[in-house]
Parts: sequence; C-alpha cells; structure tokens
Amino acid sequence: MNYCSNCGSPQISWRVPPGDNRLRQVCGACGTVHYHNPKIIAGCLPMWEDKVLLCRRAIEPRQGLWNVPAGFLEIGESVEAGAIREVQEEAEAQVHQLRLHTIFTFTNFHHVYIQFLGELVDGQFGVGEETLESRLFSEEEIPWDEIAFASSVFALQRFFEDRKSGVPQVHVGSI
Amino acid sequence: MNYCSNCGSPQISWRVPPGDNRLRQVCGACGTVHYHNPKIIAGCLPMWEDKVLLCRRAIEPRQGLWNVPAGFLEIGESVEAGAIREVQEEAEAQVHQLRLHTIFTFTNFHHVYIQFLGELVDGQFGVGEETLESRLFSEEEIPWDEIAFASSVFALQRFFEDRKSGVPQVHVGSI
Repeated sequence: MNYCSNCGSPQISWRVPPGDNRLRQVCGACGTVHYHNPKIIAGCLPMWEDKVLLCRRAIEPRQGLWNVPAGFLEIGESVEAGAIREVQEEAEAQVHQLRLHTIFTFTNFHHVYIQFLGELVDGQFGVGEETLESRLFSEEEIPWDEIAFASSVFALQRFFEDRKSGVPQVHVGSI
Repeated sequence: MNYCSNCGSPQISWRVPPGDNRLRQVCGACGTVHYHNPKIIAGCLPMWEDKVLLCRRAIEPRQGLWNVPAGFLEIGESVEAGAIREVQEEAEAQVHQLRLHTIFTFTNFHHVYIQFLGELVDGQFGVGEETLESRLFSEEEIPWDEIAFASSVFALQRFFEDRKSGVPQVHVGSI
C-alpha cells in the first residue's frame, strides 16, 4: 500500500493505533487504519469410486504441479458454495454431498485453506482454463513429489488415513 | 475505495478484468486489480464443568449482547492460535484442548466464523477491554434472546445438541 485508498495521501506509515496492540498501516492525513487479514481459499477433493480427482496447475504459483481444486473465496458466497464453484471452474466437474475435511493455515502466506470432500455427481470432468490436465488417482498413483501445496498433501494424507481407519474426521493443520 | 492504493489515482471503477468473470475494482491509471475477500473471525466457546463461558460485548456491533469470544484472525497466526488469543483478550481466560466445532459464513457481511470448543485451563476468567461482563452459563441459563450473532446461536445450539447425542461433530452453516 503506497497511497491511502480513502483519501489518496501517500502518508502511509506503520503504527499501533490507540486501543490496538499491533502495527497497522495508518494514513497520516485522514487517520484511516488499513487492516490486512488472511484470505480464505475454499476447495474440495472430488471422489469417484476408489479414486480422487486432482488438477495440474496451468498458472503460477506451482505451475505444472498437481492440486486439489481450490481458489479464493469470493464475497457473498459460503465456503461450501466456493468449493463447489472451484471444482466447476478448475475441473469442469460437479460435486455433491460435501463434507468438511481440513482447515490448513499458511501463516507466512496469510492463506487459510478450508477443504471439503465431495462425490463427483456423474464421474465426468474436464480441463478448466487454469488447469493443464485433470485426472483420477488411486492412492498408489498419487504423485506425492509433484503436489503443489502443503495444504493438498495434508488433505490427501488425512483422506487416505481416514479411509483406512474407517473414521471420517475434520483435521486442522498449519505451517 | 476512493483512490488506488498502488498509484494514488482516483480513477477506480468496477470492471471485469480479462480472464475473470466478476466485477472488480480496477485502477484506470496503473491497471491494478483490487480484490476484496471475506474475512475470517476465529473464536472458541470455553467450557467449564457443565457450563460455557460467554462475554457481553462492550463495543458495537451488538453492544450489550452476549457472544462467544471471537475476533478477526490476524496476519501470521493459525485459526487455532487466533481463537486462543481472542479468548485471552475478551475473557482474560486460558483455553486448551481445542476442537474445531463450527464454520459459519455471513454471506452478506463477508465474514466467515471458524469456531472451536476448548476447555478452560483452570476455571478462571475475567473481563477484557471489549467486554462488559463474562459469565458461565448452563444450558438452561443461556439468554437466547440476547445472543449477539447468528454464528453464536448456531455454535451454542449445535454444542448442546452434540452433548445430548454424545456425538461431537463439526458443523457448517451460512446465512
């Protein structure tokens, strides 16, 4: 932030506002405190028979690596609706029967992943604009060295563990 | 947003950027796309014996009403750490053994509540700066008509239901 989005002044500095205990970007001209908060990434691991659907990323970061369909939650949608939309956009697939599966915070990147499990409605999927390739993987086929983000490794590992134990759980992690 | 936070220009307008499908605030001078995303509110319902701890709000919105301790997740902290901090700040209490309990989206206010259950470490609590009063409530004592937010009603109702059924669950809701 170089300029105040309220008044246009360049007098932006980091200060602890009165009654607060953290450094915030504050405008020296109009006094507006500019808060920055972590962003939510909503996603869903689509399941079909004994396999899960991953997408190979066509965009940075981590272009070319495999990922659980996920993306920034938009204003006005629930996390569940955001997850369903992201599967549609990235994998051109419909999921239903969603169940919350993982919450994973990247504290350094200010991202919180909220990821569901969902069943593919009809087993059909495609390749969205931000995707190079979509594919169903059995556990043995998962390309563990080519998974884009720790949040996806976390979700996949917990999914296969839960399937073995027969006890579906919701898992909270962070890095 | 009245001015571009990147270049200071007042030429901010709502447009659909190339490759996007939503209206965004875009700077006509430097081209920066300003994304706005939902914010995370992390909270925890503290438990002690057969009671839960609520705080009466000293600040707007909903000043004077009772709430589950919760507040905006800060940059650099996990949702669990944020929930623990909020209990400390609002109720001057320590919680441990946290377990994820509810995710509740206010689609109109762009807030996603992520709330845990946690045990008070020693049964001690106080009154934080943003709190008028803190109190332990049994189920029969909950002031249902004076609960600040739908997210807290949701969390409290699910908590007492789960306790009756003996099956702790994670609940996803939205309004």
